[in-house]
Amino acid sequence: MVVVMKKGAAEGDIQHVIDFIHQFGLKTHLSKGRERTIIGVIGEKSKLEKDQISVLRGVSKVYNILQPFKLVSREFQSENSVIQVNDVAIGGGTPVIFAGPCSVENERQILDTAWMVKEFGAKILRGGAFKPRTSPYSFQGLGLEGLKLLKKAREETGLSIVTEVMDPADVELISEYADILQVGSRSMQNFNLLKAVGRTRKPVLLKRGMSATLTELLMSAEYIMSEGNPNIILCERGIRTFVEYSRNTLDLNIVPAVQKISHLPIIVDPSHGTGRSDLVAPLSLAAIAVGADGLMVEVHPKPELALSDANQSLNAEQFGELMRKVIQLIGWRKMHAESHVTV
Amino acid sequence: MVVVMKKGAAEGDIQHVIDFIHQFGLKTHLSKGRERTIIGVIGEKSKLEKDQISVLRGVSKVYNILQPFKLVSREFQSENSVIQVNDVAIGGGTPVIFAGPCSVENERQILDTAWMVKEFGAKILRGGAFKPRTSPYSFQGLGLEGLKLLKKAREETGLSIVTEVMDPADVELISEYADILQVGSRSMQNFNLLKAVGRTRKPVLLKRGMSATLTELLMSAEYIMSEGNPNIILCERGIRTFVEYSRNTLDLNIVPAVQKISHLPIIVDPSHGTGRSDLVAPLSLAAIAVGADGLMVEVHPKPELALSDANQSLNAEQFGELMRKVIQLIGWRKMHAESHVTV
Amino acid sequence: MVVVMKKGAAEGDIQHVIDFIHQFGLKTHLSKGRERTIIGVIGEKSKLEKDQISVLRGVSKVYNILQPFKLVSREFQSENSVIQVNDVAIGGGTPVIFAGPCSVENERQILDTAWMVKEFGAKILRGGAFKPRTSPYSFQGLGLEGLKLLKKAREETGLSIVTEVMDPADVELISEYADILQVGSRSMQNFNLLKAVGRTRKPVLLKRGMSATLTELLMSAEYIMSEGNPNIILCERGIRTFVEYSRNTLDLNIVPAVQKISHLPIIVDPSHGTGRSDLVAPLSLAAIAVGADGLMVEVHPKPELALSDANQSLNAEQFGELMRKVIQLIGWRKMHAESHVTV
Amino acid sequence: MVVVMKKGAAEGDIQHVIDFIHQFGLKTHLSKGRERTIIGVIGEKSKLEKDQISVLRGVSKVYNILQPFKLVSREFQSENSVIQVNDVAIGGGTPVIFAGPCSVENERQILDTAWMVKEFGAKILRGGAFKPRTSPYSFQGLGLEGLKLLKKAREETGLSIVTEVMDPADVELISEYADILQVGSRSMQNFNLLKAVGRTRKPVLLKRGMSATLTELLMSAEYIMSEGNPNIILCERGIRTFVEYSRNTLDLNIVPAVQKISHLPIIVDPSHGTGRSDLVAPLSLAAIAVGADGLMVEVHPKPELALSDANQSLNAEQFGELMRKVIQLIGWRKMHAESHVTV
Repeated sequence: MVVVMKKGAAEGDIQHVIDFIHQFGLKTHLSKGRERTIIGVIGEKSKLEKDQISVLRGVSKVYNILQPFKLVSREFQSENSVIQVNDVAIGGGTPVIFAGPCSVENERQILDTAWMVKEFGAKILRGGAFKPRTSPYSFQGLGLEGLKLLKKAREETGLSIVTEVMDPADVELISEYADILQVGSRSMQNFNLLKAVGRTRKPVLLKRGMSATLTELLMSAEYIMSEGNPNIILCERGIRTFVEYSRNTLDLNIVPAVQKISHLPIIVDPSHGTGRSDLVAPLSLAAIAVGADGLMVEVHPKPELALSDANQSLNAEQFGELMRKVIQLIGWRKMHAESHVTV
Repeated sequence: MVVVMKKGAAEGDIQHVIDFIHQFGLKTHLSKGRERTIIGVIGEKSKLEKDQISVLRGVSKVYNILQPFKLVSREFQSENSVIQVNDVAIGGGTPVIFAGPCSVENERQILDTAWMVKEFGAKILRGGAFKPRTSPYSFQGLGLEGLKLLKKAREETGLSIVTEVMDPADVELISEYADILQVGSRSMQNFNLLKAVGRTRKPVLLKRGMSATLTELLMSAEYIMSEGNPNIILCERGIRTFVEYSRNTLDLNIVPAVQKISHLPIIVDPSHGTGRSDLVAPLSLAAIAVGADGLMVEVHPKPELALSDANQSLNAEQFGELMRKVIQLIGWRKMHAESHVTV
Repeated sequence: MVVVMKKGAAEGDIQHVIDFIHQFGLKTHLSKGRERTIIGVIGEKSKLEKDQISVLRGVSKVYNILQPFKLVSREFQSENSVIQVNDVAIGGGTPVIFAGPCSVENERQILDTAWMVKEFGAKILRGGAFKPRTSPYSFQGLGLEGLKLLKKAREETGLSIVTEVMDPADVELISEYADILQVGSRSMQNFNLLKAVGRTRKPVLLKRGMSATLTELLMSAEYIMSEGNPNIILCERGIRTFVEYSRNTLDLNIVPAVQKISHLPIIVDPSHGTGRSDLVAPLSLAAIAVGADGLMVEVHPKPELALSDANQSLNAEQFGELMRKVIQLIGWRKMHAESHVTV
Repeated sequence: MVVVMKKGAAEGDIQHVIDFIHQFGLKTHLSKGRERTIIGVIGEKSKLEKDQISVLRGVSKVYNILQPFKLVSREFQSENSVIQVNDVAIGGGTPVIFAGPCSVENERQILDTAWMVKEFGAKILRGGAFKPRTSPYSFQGLGLEGLKLLKKAREETGLSIVTEVMDPADVELISEYADILQVGSRSMQNFNLLKAVGRTRKPVLLKRGMSATLTELLMSAEYIMSEGNPNIILCERGIRTFVEYSRNTLDLNIVPAVQKISHLPIIVDPSHGTGRSDLVAPLSLAAIAVGADGLMVEVHPKPELALSDANQSLNAEQFGELMRKVIQLIGWRKMHAESHVTV
């Protein structure tokens, strides 16, 4: 930590700050500039919070100079984490496609979609059984019945399954059916849920909250990892801004920014990140080009009959056309732009 | 719903939209303008989601013209809800002060704070036992031990207690100790938690999420109320913006905006809404002037030793000075500006 | 400036940063922590920009520890600036009311409004002659004709006039007619315009840009003041956020935040800050309570016929009722809450 | 326009709205739903503003169903506009690279940069002569001297020149030296400047404002086009959000969204859109993949000595490596993803 004192801070106030820091077993380093005095804090920062010093008399600003996350950082582990899901490796250089309907609605719908997305090259089937919905009057998902249908889709197609878990009490149940546990945007800071999925060894897909900073996203991953589960896949899915023509603003800046400071893989969800089916294809290609480790795309055999997210789902024809381009672009990327991030 | 067709939409597409709507047992009303055709949808909107029509060929825009919330709306109940907490009425015209530390830290701290805030006029003691913290390495609260200390503070001072519940599994336990269950900002869309507190009859303090719209806040209240619990107090606590000099941007616009369309009381938390102890006093007065039904203020006997939120807590002297002004302004408001909201 | 090196930065890189800084005639102060090396920069910061150091090898972060503004800061002038506009003092403790229509439309409208707002206690008449409009097809203001009508309103009522200047080329002309030159939100960073109004000695009303930080607002004031014009009134008018129920989010946090670090007065515009006439009254009272030096309110004799901003204008009855409360609250504030900002 | 009346609106209020609309020579179309009455407005919308109806008694909401822009829309011109700048076509299918320093600093710097960017494939040289800077104490550009150096760079290298114009009074002068007039982000709603560049026939590069909506961007283009100048190139350069790790949030969603409703070309500026030189390369590739008509990249021979934007400028080596990938990706796009936007 670096403590900047106010212009003309009294000697007594400076000494009080130093004494206060020493109480916590930390050392200080004093530097008097022309206008300001600066106090460096040396030692383990976890003993003392920035705010505790900010309130002392004569203090102008306090800066944390160390990152607050450890296990998820590149400093802790320099090589990329590769998350193995059955026979698929996420973070290993080849982007992986997650696709499927917003919600599991019935056997016909989920099986048809599963076969279709598999045919076009997806490796992971997404589908919601427990659905977080803004309105209590909207379709809330099929629950356990939905999990069973997902299991059936896996048995028939061989695709791995990702589905959302909303409640720590459901982690055990859902772990029996899913290959990847999804922690949704609205749950990114549900810390009990993070701890619960952290106590399993299942891969976790952690979606960025609607107004989460990069630090907050990584701190939520740190919760999972500090419980012992290193199998974390991050997911950018759009942030909330003032913008009027898309449901969210897809923030692709975060992909290389995460890759620089963390070893965890990060995929992109252009369906939620745009909220418009006509924008999904161009933003999918952009996500591949920017270096994402995968895509998560909402697909529905008949979007106009979807019980949720109809507006952002692709139909079979649209998804097929997108996948042809995506697969080619992945090939191009592997040849020409393997790693554009300099760590 | 109102469906606006694209300029020059084909007759077949218009007819297809009409037929599609009729399938759901709804009626339509056709209006052909000079440039656009508009289709009004008549009947219960819950049968059909806006997105399902948006994706049909030839459709330009779909507007929902009805509010999505029911039980929490002024149309459902025109008079204000007054939430009774022991001998205190919230929403009855006299703003109520909630005060206390961010976290319960030890017996001495919570009892001293309780007596102090009571002396200055607060009616409800706040204090966190289960704390949602961005970092897994930060102080996470005393848990059950904290609840017991809060109970002791109630027994000694007679103040009512509000404390946060983060997990549906904890609702029963916390209900034994608290008079009001707080659903925090990060949990505003934890729908299982909303349902769980909705199944009790305890008053619920529902804090606005960091990037929640007014509609989303009221829909979360609707979750609680649709489970049978009408005792809901809303709380504005600042939203996340680009602003650099305060932790959050306190959005006082929402107070009269909520009061206009909902019968629920709404209080304001200037401590989180600014994140700076030096801004808490002026924004508290602003909140009373704008018509809030109460304030929630963080107070700590020694802010520099607080284990969380040191930077935004008032000490005894600051809180005392604030309360003298607040009480006077409440008196002024009751005399001169009883209801500046025209419903 | 404080330069934080990366963990394990090479000695050569550290020395290179030090040498680079010395080239600019600045001194350095080295501090080696357990994990990081920190280099303090001592001397005039204007010689070197933060970004120039950020790009050097081995540098992790660079912090500016001095504020970038000078003339507008409390450190430069500790007592409040009081801006005299004819017989009215802005910033002297008594909030001043600016009121009038969005646009000057015709003689009858502006004179009627002027007499009306004067009767209820406003001291400054606002009215746009040159209007910044999003659409080229919207009413663009009466131009010179509007200025003449404002002059007439001043002659008849004795009110002072504030009107917007959009172009450096118009500063001279508008200065002949107006008592205060308004720099609108969209022009807050029109630096040529800031310099041009800075070269006059007319009071300037500087409105915060829609996404301006506090620092940017004060730097724009610094532009005006560095040209020799110290007569600056700041104005908060709402910022752009994701919020859906008000045109902008009125940010009252900025009022005490500005008062703490700058000597300039700051007023609040609840009409643009909410965009809804039904929210103007409660937010006006909040602005007085928070400590604003004045209010700017849009008023129109017949809002439904207004050529701009119809939705946020008060009619005579609404404005009269608001002013009765505002004047009483000003009286209360002068008695009980003179200065709630501790500088 | 569609006017939605409040639930249970009085017959008299409904009739008053209808009569009010008829006064403006417009027709109405009445539709009574189960809960709400809706009034469609038929005729030229420009006669009446939405806000004028919103304030009438009994009105709940008013929706504009027509886009407010005309000349820039796809409905007005269905084929893409191709802007010819000397021998380069922008918007014709092949993305064009604009590159150069933030500011022109001296002859050596601008000539070296010009030859370098030309060598790697850029077609347009960018460089600021009149610089908009947040601080009056920062380098403000070389002015006329800078323009002369740009002219010299064009004569020597054959590159076309783009430079910013900040003041309507400078349009004529700058038009003598530049091939493209840049209207910067801070000037996007400087309407006098838009009209002034609209009166020339020079190509205009219109950068999106920091918090501009899509509609506002297109309305600013409409200002230029309605003055007679159809040569407009739009530019996405990042929006202001809460995000902490990049200077701005690059919003690539807007690229296909603009292409769908407007015929104007749109390029992307990843330098300002990220503010970090290490993110420029991956976001440049993303911009090409999403379908942008070009890139604008800041390049400086020695970023650590740049007088502005040091932090986001690429050096020669970085730019060269980026261009090799960009050119290949352009080739891939032309072959495989020519038009992923379905108009």
